[in-house]
Amino acid sequence: MSKLQGNILYGQSGGPTSVINASAYGVIKEAKKHKEIGQVIAMKHGIKGALNEEFFFIDRQDEETIELLKHTPGSAFGSVRYKLKDFREDDSNYLRLLYIFKKYNIRYFFYNGGNDSMDTCAKIADYMKHIDYDCRIIGIPKTIDNDLPHTDHTPGYGSAAKYISNTMMEICYDMLAYPNGKVTIVEIMGRHAGWLTAAAGIANLSGIGPDLIYFPEIPFSVEKFKENVNQVYQKKKQCLVAVSEGITNKEGIFISSSSGYRDAFGHFQLGGVASKLAGTIASDLGIPSRSVEFSSTQRAAAHLQSLTDVNEAIQVGAYAVEAAIKGKSNMMVTIQRIKNDPYEVGYSLHPLIECANTERGVPRSMINAEANGVTQEFIDYALPLIQGENPPKFKGGIQQFSKLKD
Amino acid sequence: MSKLQGNILYGQSGGPTSVINASAYGVIKEAKKHKEIGQVIAMKHGIKGALNEEFFFIDRQDEETIELLKHTPGSAFGSVRYKLKDFREDDSNYLRLLYIFKKYNIRYFFYNGGNDSMDTCAKIADYMKHIDYDCRIIGIPKTIDNDLPHTDHTPGYGSAAKYISNTMMEICYDMLAYPNGKVTIVEIMGRHAGWLTAAAGIANLSGIGPDLIYFPEIPFSVEKFKENVNQVYQKKKQCLVAVSEGITNKEGIFISSSSGYRDAFGHFQLGGVASKLAGTIASDLGIPSRSVEFSSTQRAAAHLQSLTDVNEAIQVGAYAVEAAIKGKSNMMVTIQRIKNDPYEVGYSLHPLIECANTERGVPRSMINAEANGVTQEFIDYALPLIQGENPPKFKGGIQQFSKLKD
Repeated sequence: MSKLQGNILYGQSGGPTSVINASAYGVIKEAKKHKEIGQVIAMKHGIKGALNEEFFFIDRQDEETIELLKHTPGSAFGSVRYKLKDFREDDSNYLRLLYIFKKYNIRYFFYNGGNDSMDTCAKIADYMKHIDYDCRIIGIPKTIDNDLPHTDHTPGYGSAAKYISNTMMEICYDMLAYPNGKVTIVEIMGRHAGWLTAAAGIANLSGIGPDLIYFPEIPFSVEKFKENVNQVYQKKKQCLVAVSEGITNKEGIFISSSSGYRDAFGHFQLGGVASKLAGTIASDLGIPSRSVEFSSTQRAAAHLQSLTDVNEAIQVGAYAVEAAIKGKSNMMVTIQRIKNDPYEVGYSLHPLIECANTERGVPRSMINAEANGVTQEFIDYALPLIQGENPPKFKGGIQQFSKLKD
Repeated sequence: MSKLQGNILYGQSGGPTSVINASAYGVIKEAKKHKEIGQVIAMKHGIKGALNEEFFFIDRQDEETIELLKHTPGSAFGSVRYKLKDFREDDSNYLRLLYIFKKYNIRYFFYNGGNDSMDTCAKIADYMKHIDYDCRIIGIPKTIDNDLPHTDHTPGYGSAAKYISNTMMEICYDMLAYPNGKVTIVEIMGRHAGWLTAAAGIANLSGIGPDLIYFPEIPFSVEKFKENVNQVYQKKKQCLVAVSEGITNKEGIFISSSSGYRDAFGHFQLGGVASKLAGTIASDLGIPSRSVEFSSTQRAAAHLQSLTDVNEAIQVGAYAVEAAIKGKSNMMVTIQRIKNDPYEVGYSLHPLIECANTERGVPRSMINAEANGVTQEFIDYALPLIQGENPPKFKGGIQQFSKLKD
């Protein structure tokens, strides 16, 4: 394999996680080890930054800024939701990208994202191969939703699962304060995949946690839900419910009070389902109820990262660089679980096109028979992913985050 | 002063905080130092536990359970919202309490709560004095709302403020990921007092944070709100808003979509105001918006306690015991700020009756001229209260909380 000299172009895309910037850290640190790599250039707001020629030059950042990437939520380099057309249909963006690749001598392209981002990444790889521009293109997985196929799990999920399970415990302790409590309904992200919602079930290991969990994979019946809640409430005088934002009725219509807004990929903006169901419980059953909507906190809670997740996020970034140096391209990095006790993973690659636009839901075997809780199989799967802490860097009571120079 | 031999009866009441159990820890540890004290008995669900003769005997708990009180959210002994009638109107509950006090040789009564709880505490003190039963009754302040009068601040506020400010930073970092962002509206607790909502403003010290903050102390105009949001959004293409659950129009009507449920003290159940306002922004301005409702997470987030707050919570508990031993009664413990740099406080007492049923709002001088942000005076006041961390006790990725034996 001939050595390919050039620069790295790195970008972030889609919804942030609390550890996506740790993957950037992995790319940056690994790149320094290889003489083939000139410098790392990061796109500002993903592919849009490349099209607009807006970059962060990593060499111009100080060491503290780079170190803090491991503690910084959001997309430190900016994210984007931008769907590229197929180049056979419209190659204007691709010609622009090719110009940029040549101008900055980009020979390595890493795109850090979820399903939609892998679609973008695959299309660029397809084009660059088509016009025979020598470069290596690797997708770096991230999504709190944990719905990418061909990987045991995705970086970002472990930290979100840790936040959700620990916060559910806290909510439950708070709720148990009163002898005659409320029905508390917590809304959790995950449009089509219930992995995050399932994570609420980890709380039950502490002896307390959600009484009921509703998944987007299982058609939701409001009548059945009221029956379940009423049964728990009559017995315990309180009830903690975890519900996915993405639950649908059996016709596939979202229960959520959608605002009707759709993003660039045509996805409906969800939200408000817990508040709606809390209203139903109050009005139809006459039971006091409250709703909690974690919303972006669950993907942004850098202060409650899983160290396992942070380390794996760094590793997938580093592995992408290593693989590309070795000549791999048009692939996404995957995590393979080797064993559970002690937990051990390896890293591998899978063709990008098979990772794009496909969503992996929670298998039925991880959801209980009544379809309102998790099984031990899910706990065994998820528990290793939330292990270890990465204590935030506080200064004067507030967290220190990375601030990049343009 | 003659020595008064007997037992302590301790109880928790009202909404929990993440450090109320640290005050219990303070009572328990201080009690051990005094020969006058036989044992500490804790009521299960506050005053209702005394009436029902349901107790936790502290001597029967192991040391780890006691130590974990410093990390445990909710009310570890159970809380209650129960309004005692004046004994001159109906003394049945008081006769029952007197029976319990005599049966368990209760000579020290500590009630840990907010405004309503101080009302209960004052009434019991009034009765015991009236019938000349020798005992000492002290209120121990707690409330995330920070609305108790005659004290610089209340235990519970600092930790909630730390959670709110740090989470607002995280939400802001998440929101900034996209070039064309959303309006994110975060709903914060505080029925009549905006202290918690103001805490969102601490986030701005990091360079990012809420663009707009709306207080329950200032009448809310939906038109003005839309104007403010639109102005920020047109300039920045995103806008982060912190809004109190308790905002009202100029007639004093809650903006919140209240479920109509009222608690034992006649307070409306609030919630849903952020979701309502997000809907308004989407429909009236056509701007994508999302809502976050912290709800009980802000008072239950033991994993993000302020060490200053934890220590003060322990101290107010210990001070209550010391003061009672010295013969004080019918008082609430207060915190007096001695100086800000370095931060130093002292503890004192104030008559219970003057602390009960009175709410202290945010002074106008801590709210900016436009009534949509905080002033430096607020930052100077609040910042010392969020200093220091009390790292959670994780075991296998989940927090360890105190589990009391009945």
